[in-house]
Amino acid sequence: MSKKYIDTETLKYLLFDVHNLGELLSKKRFEDHDIESLNMFLDSVEEFSDRELFPYLAEMDTKPAHYKDGTVIVNKQVNTYMKKGGEMGLISAPFDYGDGGLQIPFIIQTASTYIQEAANNQLPGYGGLTLGAAELIVHFANESLNKIYVPKMLSGQWGGTMCLTEPQAGSSLSDIVTKAYKTDKDYYKISGQKIFISAGDHQFAENIIHLVLARIEGAPKGTKGISLFVVPKNRLNSDGSLIKNDVMTVGDFQKMGQRGYCTTHLGFGDNNDCQGWLVGEPNKGLTYMFKLMNAARIGVGRGAAAIAMAAYQASLQYSTERPQGRKLTSTGKKNPDETQCLIIEHPDVRRMLLLQKSIVEGSLSLVLLASKYQDLLLTTSDNELKIKYNLLLEIITPIAKTYPSEAGINSVSNGLQVLGGYGFCSDFILQQYYRDIRIFSLYEGTTGIQSQDLLGRKIPMENGKGLELLSLEIQKTIKVAYQYDELKPYAKKMGIKLELTQEVLSFLMPFAKKGNYERYLADANLFMEFFSIIIISWLWLDMAVNSKQKLQSNDLTYSKDFYESKIHTMKFYFKYELPKTISLANTLMDEETLTINEYKKNIFV
Amino acid sequence: MSKKYIDTETLKYLLFDVHNLGELLSKKRFEDHDIESLNMFLDSVEEFSDRELFPYLAEMDTKPAHYKDGTVIVNKQVNTYMKKGGEMGLISAPFDYGDGGLQIPFIIQTASTYIQEAANNQLPGYGGLTLGAAELIVHFANESLNKIYVPKMLSGQWGGTMCLTEPQAGSSLSDIVTKAYKTDKDYYKISGQKIFISAGDHQFAENIIHLVLARIEGAPKGTKGISLFVVPKNRLNSDGSLIKNDVMTVGDFQKMGQRGYCTTHLGFGDNNDCQGWLVGEPNKGLTYMFKLMNAARIGVGRGAAAIAMAAYQASLQYSTERPQGRKLTSTGKKNPDETQCLIIEHPDVRRMLLLQKSIVEGSLSLVLLASKYQDLLLTTSDNELKIKYNLLLEIITPIAKTYPSEAGINSVSNGLQVLGGYGFCSDFILQQYYRDIRIFSLYEGTTGIQSQDLLGRKIPMENGKGLELLSLEIQKTIKVAYQYDELKPYAKKMGIKLELTQEVLSFLMPFAKKGNYERYLADANLFMEFFSIIIISWLWLDMAVNSKQKLQSNDLTYSKDFYESKIHTMKFYFKYELPKTISLANTLMDEETLTINEYKKNIFV
Repeated sequence: MSKKYIDTETLKYLLFDVHNLGELLSKKRFEDHDIESLNMFLDSVEEFSDRELFPYLAEMDTKPAHYKDGTVIVNKQVNTYMKKGGEMGLISAPFDYGDGGLQIPFIIQTASTYIQEAANNQLPGYGGLTLGAAELIVHFANESLNKIYVPKMLSGQWGGTMCLTEPQAGSSLSDIVTKAYKTDKDYYKISGQKIFISAGDHQFAENIIHLVLARIEGAPKGTKGISLFVVPKNRLNSDGSLIKNDVMTVGDFQKMGQRGYCTTHLGFGDNNDCQGWLVGEPNKGLTYMFKLMNAARIGVGRGAAAIAMAAYQASLQYSTERPQGRKLTSTGKKNPDETQCLIIEHPDVRRMLLLQKSIVEGSLSLVLLASKYQDLLLTTSDNELKIKYNLLLEIITPIAKTYPSEAGINSVSNGLQVLGGYGFCSDFILQQYYRDIRIFSLYEGTTGIQSQDLLGRKIPMENGKGLELLSLEIQKTIKVAYQYDELKPYAKKMGIKLELTQEVLSFLMPFAKKGNYERYLADANLFMEFFSIIIISWLWLDMAVNSKQKLQSNDLTYSKDFYESKIHTMKFYFKYELPKTISLANTLMDEETLTINEYKKNIFV
Repeated sequence: MSKKYIDTETLKYLLFDVHNLGELLSKKRFEDHDIESLNMFLDSVEEFSDRELFPYLAEMDTKPAHYKDGTVIVNKQVNTYMKKGGEMGLISAPFDYGDGGLQIPFIIQTASTYIQEAANNQLPGYGGLTLGAAELIVHFANESLNKIYVPKMLSGQWGGTMCLTEPQAGSSLSDIVTKAYKTDKDYYKISGQKIFISAGDHQFAENIIHLVLARIEGAPKGTKGISLFVVPKNRLNSDGSLIKNDVMTVGDFQKMGQRGYCTTHLGFGDNNDCQGWLVGEPNKGLTYMFKLMNAARIGVGRGAAAIAMAAYQASLQYSTERPQGRKLTSTGKKNPDETQCLIIEHPDVRRMLLLQKSIVEGSLSLVLLASKYQDLLLTTSDNELKIKYNLLLEIITPIAKTYPSEAGINSVSNGLQVLGGYGFCSDFILQQYYRDIRIFSLYEGTTGIQSQDLLGRKIPMENGKGLELLSLEIQKTIKVAYQYDELKPYAKKMGIKLELTQEVLSFLMPFAKKGNYERYLADANLFMEFFSIIIISWLWLDMAVNSKQKLQSNDLTYSKDFYESKIHTMKFYFKYELPKTISLANTLMDEETLTINEYKKNIFV
């Protein structure tokens, strides 16, 4: 039996039915697309992933990217991916026609990349970083920079990166020290070190365009003095040829997972000959970067969701092929005369599979929803609606980044457990997924940072308007769910959880109001977990409502079992995951303060 | 600053104060030992671990054990460990004087191995398996087998293994097919395949003594027809020399972690020349094996607890050396003029450290408690007390195996997260611990199997007598805790959790009584998590009581901060972990049945 890494039916069901892509396609921006054409696009992506991505996943792990003689040696498939993928429009698709794109909805780009990442979570990163860097140039740089760089990036000929992190600063961007010195030409001279630069260099790269955060000499301290520069690995000579731009590859971090996706250490301007071109205005670098941060963060959630999907499929397949033990029924219990049953027949294995299914499909629905909010924000002209979609996008983004990454670790771990000892062995892919997914809670702002963003910025923004709008969306689903007897108990539970959210926030808010942010945010991670589970429960209820509607109308694109499995999995999530919010709320509303520094100095003695 | 992998103060505090080793030493079996001599023994183990174990940990990972030309190539330190460790008595120490041992308490052997495993979780396995195999021979084999094998095993000259698993059977031991054919000599001829044999072969092994489960020709089907054999890699010739015994090393499983600890595939009797000697009586193999299974399972918990300890120490050290960001106080928030603070000052980092500390020290206390029950069982002559300690040991064992393994994964993951992106990089050890610890929930019966053992066998055994005895122990602690104002609220919570346990069991028991074991055990894993957290809370309350007593009496072996940190960590566990029992109980007492096969066939469509 060939290996399956994705459940395409569920992806399409979520896209076309649950998230109602058709409605989005009525927008002028997408007028050249219809469901059929987008369906074909996704099919071609899957076919490409089957052929060019999935077969290289294990090999990229066992023969990792590594530093050699001033560059990074990566799997040759990186080259194939950039060239063929670029040709197919995998990088350019969401861009405007004017910038060489196809103006496909962002939700379709998400689905496309999700398919690719389920097949191979490492290769698409090389395209994804290029896309992000090109987007920054398109949005914020001048026309001339756009003309030089963007076409070759979108075609996959040149790569791109985001250079934020520095050794001494880590997540604390206000402490960036990379310098930019003004010259009398149109460029600045750049000098500094950047670490953890994904896709930062490789032997096939004719050029790599780095988008670098740096401080112009004399700029204000902190985040207000950071500018953004285009710094190519090779710059254009006056004759149009490329010459080296004093960007040195100092090393490649060796990692526990995603070992085929290089993570470089770059040095800029060691020989005082590194030229960088300012993007937009001085000191606005972080603002630009963060305008595209939502997309980047949703992208991280998408990647984690995709790995969890692939791991679920692998463990599901194993469980239907592996006989072991006997069912615990009164007759079957340990009776050696009976043949062994398949392990999928054991309730505990089914629990592990359903746990995965509920996390995997819930996460997918979440990243698609966040992408849809992006599309709606981009294509809505009505100002009030624009504000609405912006707030919804802002509040959902840290959750879309974090839930798939954190719950995904648990999901993949359960997938590994399904295989027993084999899950830990290199002959099976689960152990690779287990390693690969662990980085997603660190990428693009750790879970700690996302949680502070959610509770510290997104919940209080506009006097709680984002949360209010999201609650209204949830209430809409609850209302429809009440129309179906089978769904009523779950609709009721959902309503109770909205009230519980208010209760938790009523407990926490006074700390913020008194200016005690340290206490307010001390358990932000727990709030993130609490609220994420409620959001995923909502998305499951929404899926169940949709499936119920389909079953009642007899409008069955998929099998009856398919829709019933969605309702069943919703019930599973409500029984096994949603109750966790009770204990989390309990802890969040506990008066005790045990983690704040001043309280006790020496608690780690 | 040199790397620290263990908090020896806490280990000794738990041994000598909390678990009151002194009392145990009054037993006749231990009359030659006193606290001073055992303290010196543990110090020598630590010194040995510093020198011979910890420095080889990373190297054993980066240059893993591997199959070559019919054997397995392991790190040369395996040889050093077996020889020097054997000389030191690391393998023989708990054995009777008559068998060449030192009669040290099992709890001290646990502490000794814990220190070694915190330093290097792979090397001690080679000794541990040898010890286990020798123990089987001592307890159940005849004198002549003992004389031939045991002395050379205890000195580390020869290794030992346990051969249970077969490719087609996995955890289902009743399906073992390895055959033993009677001959007219004193041996049987053995034929079959065994997989996942830890420490099964290596280039330094002069001999390896396999304890093999096999079925004598004509034996009954199922578990009742399994016998135990001593099958040496090399057998003794009549002239005393060693000749090959037709045991082939077929391969070495490559794993995600514990890569220096080989996991072999062995073939017995491919050339019809593999001789095996029956241990004890025919068809009692599984009974013998399971008599020593408690020790083996406690050993797995101990190893996981040790890795979590080492990971905690590594992340704690990092957090006190790494500056990043600023405190979220009103003045400090993002003020770039302030110097960066150490990351240990951030509440979220402190939360991750305290979470680790509470899991790590709680797990250590648990494995020490289980070991103490073993000692008490062994050294008590009073029959009623013997029954009591046996029941306590039986009920605590699956928990002592599982909690450190499962919570340990979470603990190490939090340790990795403390380091941010660096935690994922090979330059830091956290990523290795993260990989190494993942196998412990699979070793010696997966978490699923342990959970069925706990809920299916241990809770109902002797009409619930084991649980009753354990509850009495917990109530003793609650009673003392009530004497201290500061501890009263926690004592009260503990009492409530005992009631909740009864409530959960009252809900579940009727399923068992009606013979519906499948339903009764469907959520056994959740019950395991539920009950484990209650047990660890008890052990923390016990530590807090002890610390409180010490503080009040001014009998301070350690600093005041040390005792206060124990009380603080107890509070942390009660605030952040104990509430999880509420949601777990909620799920356990949910009427819905969602994971049982008959209910829905096609839920994975």
